[in-house]
Amino acid sequence: MGSQYPETGRGSLPAKDVGRLLLRCDDRPGLVAAVSAFLAGAGANIVSLDQHATEQSGGTFMQRTIFHLPGLTAARDELERSFAREVASKFDMDFRLTEAAKPKRVAIMASKEDHCLLDLLWRNRRGELDMSVVMVISNHADLADQVRPFSVPFLHVPSTKEIRHEAEQRQLDLLKGNVDVVVLARYMQILTPNFLTEVGCPLINIHHSFLPAFIGAAPYRRAKERGVKLVGATAHYVTEDLDEGPIIEQDVVRVDHRHNVEDLARLGSDVERLVLSRAVLWHCEDRIIRFGNQTVIF
Amino acid sequence: MGSQYPETGRGSLPAKDVGRLLLRCDDRPGLVAAVSAFLAGAGANIVSLDQHATEQSGGTFMQRTIFHLPGLTAARDELERSFAREVASKFDMDFRLTEAAKPKRVAIMASKEDHCLLDLLWRNRRGELDMSVVMVISNHADLADQVRPFSVPFLHVPSTKEIRHEAEQRQLDLLKGNVDVVVLARYMQILTPNFLTEVGCPLINIHHSFLPAFIGAAPYRRAKERGVKLVGATAHYVTEDLDEGPIIEQDVVRVDHRHNVEDLARLGSDVERLVLSRAVLWHCEDRIIRFGNQTVIF
Amino acid sequence: MGSQYPETGRGSLPAKDVGRLLLRCDDRPGLVAAVSAFLAGAGANIVSLDQHATEQSGGTFMQRTIFHLPGLTAARDELERSFAREVASKFDMDFRLTEAAKPKRVAIMASKEDHCLLDLLWRNRRGELDMSVVMVISNHADLADQVRPFSVPFLHVPSTKEIRHEAEQRQLDLLKGNVDVVVLARYMQILTPNFLTEVGCPLINIHHSFLPAFIGAAPYRRAKERGVKLVGATAHYVTEDLDEGPIIEQDVVRVDHRHNVEDLARLGSDVERLVLSRAVLWHCEDRIIRFGNQTVIF
Amino acid sequence: MGSQYPETGRGSLPAKDVGRLLLRCDDRPGLVAAVSAFLAGAGANIVSLDQHATEQSGGTFMQRTIFHLPGLTAARDELERSFAREVASKFDMDFRLTEAAKPKRVAIMASKEDHCLLDLLWRNRRGELDMSVVMVISNHADLADQVRPFSVPFLHVPSTKEIRHEAEQRQLDLLKGNVDVVVLARYMQILTPNFLTEVGCPLINIHHSFLPAFIGAAPYRRAKERGVKLVGATAHYVTEDLDEGPIIEQDVVRVDHRHNVEDLARLGSDVERLVLSRAVLWHCEDRIIRFGNQTVIF
Repeated sequence: MGSQYPETGRGSLPAKDVGRLLLRCDDRPGLVAAVSAFLAGAGANIVSLDQHATEQSGGTFMQRTIFHLPGLTAARDELERSFAREVASKFDMDFRLTEAAKPKRVAIMASKEDHCLLDLLWRNRRGELDMSVVMVISNHADLADQVRPFSVPFLHVPSTKEIRHEAEQRQLDLLKGNVDVVVLARYMQILTPNFLTEVGCPLINIHHSFLPAFIGAAPYRRAKERGVKLVGATAHYVTEDLDEGPIIEQDVVRVDHRHNVEDLARLGSDVERLVLSRAVLWHCEDRIIRFGNQTVIF
Repeated sequence: MGSQYPETGRGSLPAKDVGRLLLRCDDRPGLVAAVSAFLAGAGANIVSLDQHATEQSGGTFMQRTIFHLPGLTAARDELERSFAREVASKFDMDFRLTEAAKPKRVAIMASKEDHCLLDLLWRNRRGELDMSVVMVISNHADLADQVRPFSVPFLHVPSTKEIRHEAEQRQLDLLKGNVDVVVLARYMQILTPNFLTEVGCPLINIHHSFLPAFIGAAPYRRAKERGVKLVGATAHYVTEDLDEGPIIEQDVVRVDHRHNVEDLARLGSDVERLVLSRAVLWHCEDRIIRFGNQTVIF
Repeated sequence: MGSQYPETGRGSLPAKDVGRLLLRCDDRPGLVAAVSAFLAGAGANIVSLDQHATEQSGGTFMQRTIFHLPGLTAARDELERSFAREVASKFDMDFRLTEAAKPKRVAIMASKEDHCLLDLLWRNRRGELDMSVVMVISNHADLADQVRPFSVPFLHVPSTKEIRHEAEQRQLDLLKGNVDVVVLARYMQILTPNFLTEVGCPLINIHHSFLPAFIGAAPYRRAKERGVKLVGATAHYVTEDLDEGPIIEQDVVRVDHRHNVEDLARLGSDVERLVLSRAVLWHCEDRIIRFGNQTVIF
Repeated sequence: MGSQYPETGRGSLPAKDVGRLLLRCDDRPGLVAAVSAFLAGAGANIVSLDQHATEQSGGTFMQRTIFHLPGLTAARDELERSFAREVASKFDMDFRLTEAAKPKRVAIMASKEDHCLLDLLWRNRRGELDMSVVMVISNHADLADQVRPFSVPFLHVPSTKEIRHEAEQRQLDLLKGNVDVVVLARYMQILTPNFLTEVGCPLINIHHSFLPAFIGAAPYRRAKERGVKLVGATAHYVTEDLDEGPIIEQDVVRVDHRHNVEDLARLGSDVERLVLSRAVLWHCEDRIIRFGNQTVIF
């Protein structure tokens, strides 16, 4: 099963028996040693280890450890309990333990623009993304025909200001408990704080500007008016503060005076889909640790 | 009709009544003035004009002029004859005159890899490329299902070393007279010099390396072995000298020691599809003038 | 003399007898032809011609024409008068006519940071920039020793809030009539509207962020706090609206969570000096036409 | 002392009491744990740890560990012996232990081109590079005046084919035992295998092309002839196989048909100095592990 979902982010590996341990705690001496010793004691071989401390001392410590442990799936729950008891409680750690062989369940929400949605579906069909797309939800019916060939359910949930409450309730009925992450692939409607709380999983959004430039609506038009020489896109986690959530990835493309607003949108859409696909890949590979309003990408 | 095929390369314009005049000749004084005066005399308004001289004097002069002339389609043939008689013959010019409203007829040849093929079909459906895809030819049947939704004929022409002659003959039967340009979208078979002569139109290829590095087979494997820090792709016109034709466009992406050969191929494929789409766009918009083994892109 | 200042922006040419004609007017048919015919009639050979129209019709038209005319220096004034009379007045054009052999006189203003200042002086010594640096003005004495080897006068004009009026007056005494453009190479003090009016020439500033992101003070610190994945720099013409003037050039560099604010400043400084040097080069080669709050770069 | 040489590569840190442990060995379970436990036992706090395994199992393992140990300078030799005895011998490791507070002693060799040499000297004066430049050796006298203000000895060692043996002997007399690394900053003369052996330290070279494209002489001229759309530069360790040593860093810049060979050289020189400065920084911060003909950059 795992071999269908190779970990291709930075050096692909067979996923069977591969675990990922992410942790965050106050920095202090002995953390790397304690985790390494625990894993070695459990019979696990560390395949890769990345860590980051926000200060040389006294800051926050974050670590991502990839390990290989034969029989991981059977041993997982006990391993998690042991780690909590023997290491995490001692250092007051937040941690999570995942299996590379269990791809994230993903819902994609889109509106009328197809580029980000199709790019994610293509990449996933090619095996580039370590995820299982369980549904596409759209407030418009336009993209149904394009989604069908990918054998992913397309769910049309009309939503306008007047029926937003009912629409969000329908969306929540579909999403809650069924997905590990929601990807907003140019979903052009604002979600309420209640929705963000209720859905119970992270949401990743793609914003069509180089944030914090051009926060809000119509960024390409405003970029043209300001006469910028580059336009960009930003993938970020969604928080209640619109366009203010932790940035995961950004990139830009060069433009000049010959490009009109439609050209900026066209050139920018190549950046949007690339940036969003990287953010989704990294999230699905458990490479991201949130820290305040920032992200660490391992 | 033209409005379906907006010229979106660098500043999109309605295509109706818009002509493109490309020319190349020995440089000498008065060329820009002669062409401008001719067009003004014919009632045309110059919308944009780019020119390039290879030397300050005594070199080759190339120019691309976009003009607006009401009733262009009816007037085109006479305009071409007048220009040949009054300007081109005087300066010993090569030139061609095209109408923006008449998109190029394009055949795409592919094998098993889908990323370049799908990207071209999808961009064209969005109206980003100024072309009409009249057929997809593949030596494998694998991609048929993916091409069908785009309403483009998928033609499976098996081809191996043993039956290459017959296969090329079938391909020529399909292509000759029916297309203005052939795009090799990761078509993994070498075409014979005879085919290149017979097909009677330009061919654009995408090579999966930053040429001239890693000419030939397996460039990503060789890039990994050499330990390069960037991998790239090159779109070029096809000539009899394999991987040696005039380069149209190149780009690169950063890689590091954590990426294995499959990762390089995956990261490189994003560059391949982007580079190929730019080359096809520029060709279809008549932006490219070949000059020796080089290209001028206006 | 001209040969010391090769035009190296995009294809270097000997500068002797080379003129540059920049113009801007309402778009209408026949503009390119009228200018080309005038130059041909004057015995000039058009070396390169770039133009841009903001709309397909009814917008603003801008053109930069490089021409070769033997004996240009002697003929210049009469050429300018003829063009004003025969062409510009007819089309209600703004235009300027310059000689490539006459490099712009440039003053550089700096504070304590050396990277932008030294990079400009060093590029100029190598002959990369088509300019004559006539003075360096600084509100601090720190960089005097570094400027001296370049044989450029270093003028220390202390300036604080309390003595700003006197300081600006001293600066104006030095600058007025002596320079064609002032380059603010990380000059860390705000200039008053009165100064901008009185100085009587354009000013180019480098801002250490990707404008309009992080307008104002301490952009690298704010970039770190926002967790951006790229930092950038912006060269722009100075207007009374701080950080709001027409953008000339921008670029960015990738950063990540391992970089602290000092690292962002260090990495950003490479972008700053590169972006500023491009802006100065383009200005000195008369490649820039201002248009509203935007620039066209030919 | 250490505070003058901040580690600014990726997150600067005070250098006092900071050690760097680099190691390479056959991969097997328990390596990270063994090293971590050793350092914890020695009272060191791991500040950062990067590791890489070339295969999931059975490959080569490399690790760079930065640790903080009060009193490191006094304890260093004993720490090294203990590590050799208790860890390295057990796992058959190559390793080296360095102190962040002891900057590398660097010799720069140059010829007539100043851009790479000056850029290194500037950056070092600004505190960007963690090195101590102990001499500049040149086969020409041209750059003496530019080096002097940096208070670095400029040593002119003329060298031609006829006197190469004598010249190399003089260079070796200057270098042997006095430097930790030699940087060839556009030193335009081939060094003999004997020199490379005798000098007894690594050499870093900057090649003015995107290797392996345009190996050998005159890469910009050949790039122009081939009509490439990007030119680049490559920093690599020097081996007996000319232009074939392990690549440390590469980058590129976009060019087009308007650029002649001199323009390519000018644009490329910006990439050369940037790429070389990165390679030197990474070497001086002990970020590079060589592995076959490749490098791992932590």
